[in-house]
Amino acid sequence: MSTPPSSGRPHIVIVGCGFGGLEAARKLQSADVDVTVIDKTNHHLFQPLLYQVATAGLAAPAIAAPVRVLFRGRPSITTLLGEVTDIDPKAQQVRLADGTLISWDHLIVAAGATHSYFGNDQWAQAAPGLKTLADAFEIRRRVLLSFEQAEVETDPAKRRALLTFAVIGGGPTGVEMAGTLAEIARHTLSGEFRRIDPASAEVLLIEGGPRVLQAMPESLSQRALEQLQKLGVQVRLNARVTSVEPHGLQVESPFSDGGAGVGTHHIPCNCVVWAAGVAASPLGRMLASATGAETDRAGRVKVQPDLSLPGHPNISVVGDLAAAMSHRPGHEPKPVPGVSPGAKQMGRAAAANILRRIAGQATEPFRYRDYGNLATIGRNSAVVDLGTPFGPLRFSGKSAWLFWLFAHVYFLIGFRNRFVVLLDWASAYWSFQRYARVVADATAKGKQP
Amino acid sequence: MSTPPSSGRPHIVIVGCGFGGLEAARKLQSADVDVTVIDKTNHHLFQPLLYQVATAGLAAPAIAAPVRVLFRGRPSITTLLGEVTDIDPKAQQVRLADGTLISWDHLIVAAGATHSYFGNDQWAQAAPGLKTLADAFEIRRRVLLSFEQAEVETDPAKRRALLTFAVIGGGPTGVEMAGTLAEIARHTLSGEFRRIDPASAEVLLIEGGPRVLQAMPESLSQRALEQLQKLGVQVRLNARVTSVEPHGLQVESPFSDGGAGVGTHHIPCNCVVWAAGVAASPLGRMLASATGAETDRAGRVKVQPDLSLPGHPNISVVGDLAAAMSHRPGHEPKPVPGVSPGAKQMGRAAAANILRRIAGQATEPFRYRDYGNLATIGRNSAVVDLGTPFGPLRFSGKSAWLFWLFAHVYFLIGFRNRFVVLLDWASAYWSFQRYARVVADATAKGKQP
Repeated sequence: MSTPPSSGRPHIVIVGCGFGGLEAARKLQSADVDVTVIDKTNHHLFQPLLYQVATAGLAAPAIAAPVRVLFRGRPSITTLLGEVTDIDPKAQQVRLADGTLISWDHLIVAAGATHSYFGNDQWAQAAPGLKTLADAFEIRRRVLLSFEQAEVETDPAKRRALLTFAVIGGGPTGVEMAGTLAEIARHTLSGEFRRIDPASAEVLLIEGGPRVLQAMPESLSQRALEQLQKLGVQVRLNARVTSVEPHGLQVESPFSDGGAGVGTHHIPCNCVVWAAGVAASPLGRMLASATGAETDRAGRVKVQPDLSLPGHPNISVVGDLAAAMSHRPGHEPKPVPGVSPGAKQMGRAAAANILRRIAGQATEPFRYRDYGNLATIGRNSAVVDLGTPFGPLRFSGKSAWLFWLFAHVYFLIGFRNRFVVLLDWASAYWSFQRYARVVADATAKGKQP
Repeated sequence: MSTPPSSGRPHIVIVGCGFGGLEAARKLQSADVDVTVIDKTNHHLFQPLLYQVATAGLAAPAIAAPVRVLFRGRPSITTLLGEVTDIDPKAQQVRLADGTLISWDHLIVAAGATHSYFGNDQWAQAAPGLKTLADAFEIRRRVLLSFEQAEVETDPAKRRALLTFAVIGGGPTGVEMAGTLAEIARHTLSGEFRRIDPASAEVLLIEGGPRVLQAMPESLSQRALEQLQKLGVQVRLNARVTSVEPHGLQVESPFSDGGAGVGTHHIPCNCVVWAAGVAASPLGRMLASATGAETDRAGRVKVQPDLSLPGHPNISVVGDLAAAMSHRPGHEPKPVPGVSPGAKQMGRAAAANILRRIAGQATEPFRYRDYGNLATIGRNSAVVDLGTPFGPLRFSGKSAWLFWLFAHVYFLIGFRNRFVVLLDWASAYWSFQRYARVVADATAKGKQP
């Protein structure tokens, strides 16, 4: 059941409507082409703020825009909800889970990434990651229910485990989650419980490397560490997780006295958040074997300088699914980091190159513009590392937090979303209240806790 | 593991934090008593606006207030999340699902109602009701995904079934759902689809009796019917549903030519909403058999004039779980309708009677003040039936809609919620956009559609 548009114009199919897919579609929306965007959810997600949904600070609609609304006024763009299960480079078709076939003249695969448990996929149930709204809802549910169950629990050991939260991975997501969990425990929930003191909750941030926020300069990592500790987060560096179960985890870390070797200890804990590893969508390997392209260790597809696949100029891969290099004249190529600006720029560049191919022109190699890095730690503190024409600009603390706040709100889609997010954050700032605390199915069976 | 407060003051346990339980707790919050509120969710739900969540017009936090936040400044009120599975009138204890026992001196059971499928519980999977947030999310998911699947579907018969929506039950919930679904199809989604025309969706409202909104005067029922038809809703009166399956329903209705007997026809339809029958929580029957009280056909517990159980003056039942009468001096007792003002007034009255008992005073019979009825049909139209000192006041149309809007917003909890709801409705009014359209798990297996 093949479904090409009948206009005779080139038909471009974009798989995935995250940052990469959305920017590609926007680049193509006024061109003389037909575009079909396929996503397995009905929304474009502003992932940098997903941890806010996971910590009940924002409701999902504030950070998610329905995809087909974005292209409402663009008849040349068709939006389909579906999961792509197969890509056929010879027939130039994708197949959806329900069997539908969709033909393309050009294909952009922007299917993104998911969690990697470093070969321990069995940890996924006990330690959800934070990549989708479903993830965020599950984490929020577990966090809120941990406090609820602790209020009813009479066994002190079980109560202690319920009030212990572990975040694995010291990148921006982990740092933001850990900082926010500490705030919830110390401030938001204060006064609401009678039998437990929520401020007594322990929040652990477990990082395998020597510092948090390893993509940022050392000085900012140090600032972030201090801010986290000030919030009461216990940061364990050089600590490897060796096992995750429903009621605890095993952590291997060096001895604190500096002695040789590592010690392993067990942490009873009912709520573990995985923010440690990212793996490319399984479509990556599928695409690679179908086209002969190579993948890296994380399953990302290695692309040419113009983001297309070797031997398949009409297939491009962008975003977290791509292992791409940035090409700057007179410099060595540098890997493009897996961050949202990278995905957006790649999406735009791949779309521009498709338009060049259609016009018979040569494509251009991709060049990533690194505008810097931001991470927030708590309600008063962030770290910002920007490149400017005058050199790097690094700052932290309250002003960094304000910068972080406005930068994130600016990039949200839609006036209403920006307004509601600012409203929620302003209320949260002054009152410590968090407005998205609803758990719909608190007593659903079979879910942990 | 018995957990009474240790203060020596009377301990009142309230089961359920809907309208009845919340008002009872508020009545007791300043009294010299200890109160424990037990609910199986973590939120108090403003049920009259649940259909807005089900139709993606509002996000859940706008109509749900976290219970323990409501009593934050009240040390005498403890909130517990749990499901009461057993009530022991002799030992004066309730048991939670996890085995916890909680003792009480006085008990108010306000556990509410759930759906009744008139003995056909197997219809529940194909035709969810609308009583909880989980219900609303499921309906929203099915509605939005119906349009999404229709966009991909190539078989015309299957597409027709996907674009047919049936609402069963012509009370306020059914009328509001049907009217809103018609608006979504005709206005909200216009321009967003390329292969289907969402305005071609059929919305059916199936009512077993001779008119919609049977609790309201006939003139207003007639207005509502006209408004629904103007929105394109097909209203089938005197129509009984005889079977509900995942892909269609069987309806038995009189012949349109007025001939004797009834005809049965099959309606292919993938999205059915059940708004037809209400049954009391199973705690009703449990309580009745434990205390010797009687229940009515819907499982509601028959209470004394002061809302307590016969022979058990320290157990009261309020809200949708109670079959209560309103006692007005010089008049015949009248049944209290199962609406939110009824539940609120009963909650307050039961709490007041408990305080009288504690003080050694006589209790008072409950008197329901009927302030009238409202129902909205679409964005411009509602019907309002109010009692005033000068007689009944009935009106419909745009002014009724404004009245309905402000009345509902007024009764929401919290300044932020009122503000956000007004914002969402203002935006929706001007732009037809609905801001809570996110479906988190569109491709989850095992769920229909």
